[in-house]
Amino acid sequence: MNTLSSLDEMIAALRCLPGVGPKSAQRMAYHLLQRDKPGALRLARALGHAVESIHHCAKCNNFSEEEICALCRSPKRDASLLCVVEMPADLLMMEQAQCYRGMYFVLMGRLSPLDGIGPRELHLERLVRRAQENTCEVILATNFTVEGDATAHYITILLCAQGIKVSRIARGLPVGGELEHVDSGTLAQAVLERREVTG
Amino acid sequence: MNTLSSLDEMIAALRCLPGVGPKSAQRMAYHLLQRDKPGALRLARALGHAVESIHHCAKCNNFSEEEICALCRSPKRDASLLCVVEMPADLLMMEQAQCYRGMYFVLMGRLSPLDGIGPRELHLERLVRRAQENTCEVILATNFTVEGDATAHYITILLCAQGIKVSRIARGLPVGGELEHVDSGTLAQAVLERREVTG
Ligand SMILES: [Zn+2]
Ligand SMILES: [Zn+2]
Repeated sequence: MNTLSSLDEMIAALRCLPGVGPKSAQRMAYHLLQRDKPGALRLARALGHAVESIHHCAKCNNFSEEEICALCRSPKRDASLLCVVEMPADLLMMEQAQCYRGMYFVLMGRLSPLDGIGPRELHLERLVRRAQENTCEVILATNFTVEGDATAHYITILLCAQGIKVSRIARGLPVGGELEHVDSGTLAQAVLERREVTG
Repeated sequence: MNTLSSLDEMIAALRCLPGVGPKSAQRMAYHLLQRDKPGALRLARALGHAVESIHHCAKCNNFSEEEICALCRSPKRDASLLCVVEMPADLLMMEQAQCYRGMYFVLMGRLSPLDGIGPRELHLERLVRRAQENTCEVILATNFTVEGDATAHYITILLCAQGIKVSRIARGLPVGGELEHVDSGTLAQAVLERREVTG
């Protein structure tokens, strides 16, 4: 048998993608080699370039190609408001809802003890330092899932201990709902109806 | 908003993978950037290397890094038998079954008029030329699907017209299969293709 090392390596490498098992990795490799070599080369370049150039914004922790991202540098944003979201996609949803003109902090996850993600893994000490800078109110916009709620609760305790005002976006979202999958109107309403919370 | 061009490009490029829509491309990009940058770099290298080095074997049409693949060059294989399969994965299954020591021709697909894949797209004229070299029997091992059957039927007509002997692998119950748990179509076919046995 021909061992085809570079095909095997390609199939193995595709398995780094979440949700891709051996069968789909094989199907992907065959597809690219047979029908879309330009697509494969474009993907190779995009991966290399992204890994090299994308880091985390020093202020909001979102993916950024610059030390401080454009949103954090913008003079049009209200620096007294800091909205905490789980993922970059949630920040995008907030922006699309056009209901908020403050700053953000992107957790890049949520507390999830079963997955070994605790306060340290989420770098919550960085959030506390960021909130202490010149923030009047921290708005918690983590998902209304068990983990998102637990994360919000934990952050509330941390920030209230520092005397920082904390609010939670309203439960206008369905229970178990995720920001990424909600319509802009509902999300805007939830921001409008946010309530102050205390530890 | 920070437009994050290299992140956008990475997400767009991931969509060249079959079955990957906008949401999964985004999830994949976040995963790689946040948790597996080495995996992303490995994938980039593997894609580039594979596209550059993998072509089709001039004899069997399988993926190969050489002009003629190791299997086709092997003196241990029976050159009088030529087995036709749809995809490289089918060839691997045949080899794992250790039931066949002849040569192969990999169609890299099947006749599928609805997808615009006809005899020309499958390069069936190359199969005919290959079969004319020194083959005693062509064994059709395409899938027992509507398209696989149609492909086998079409190839049978082509090769018989050249006076080449053609056979089709048997259809029936799986080894260890029980009548009670097999679909009626397979059972009917197994009865139809019954063989005479002697004590
Ligand atoms: Zn930022
Ligand atoms: Zn070959």
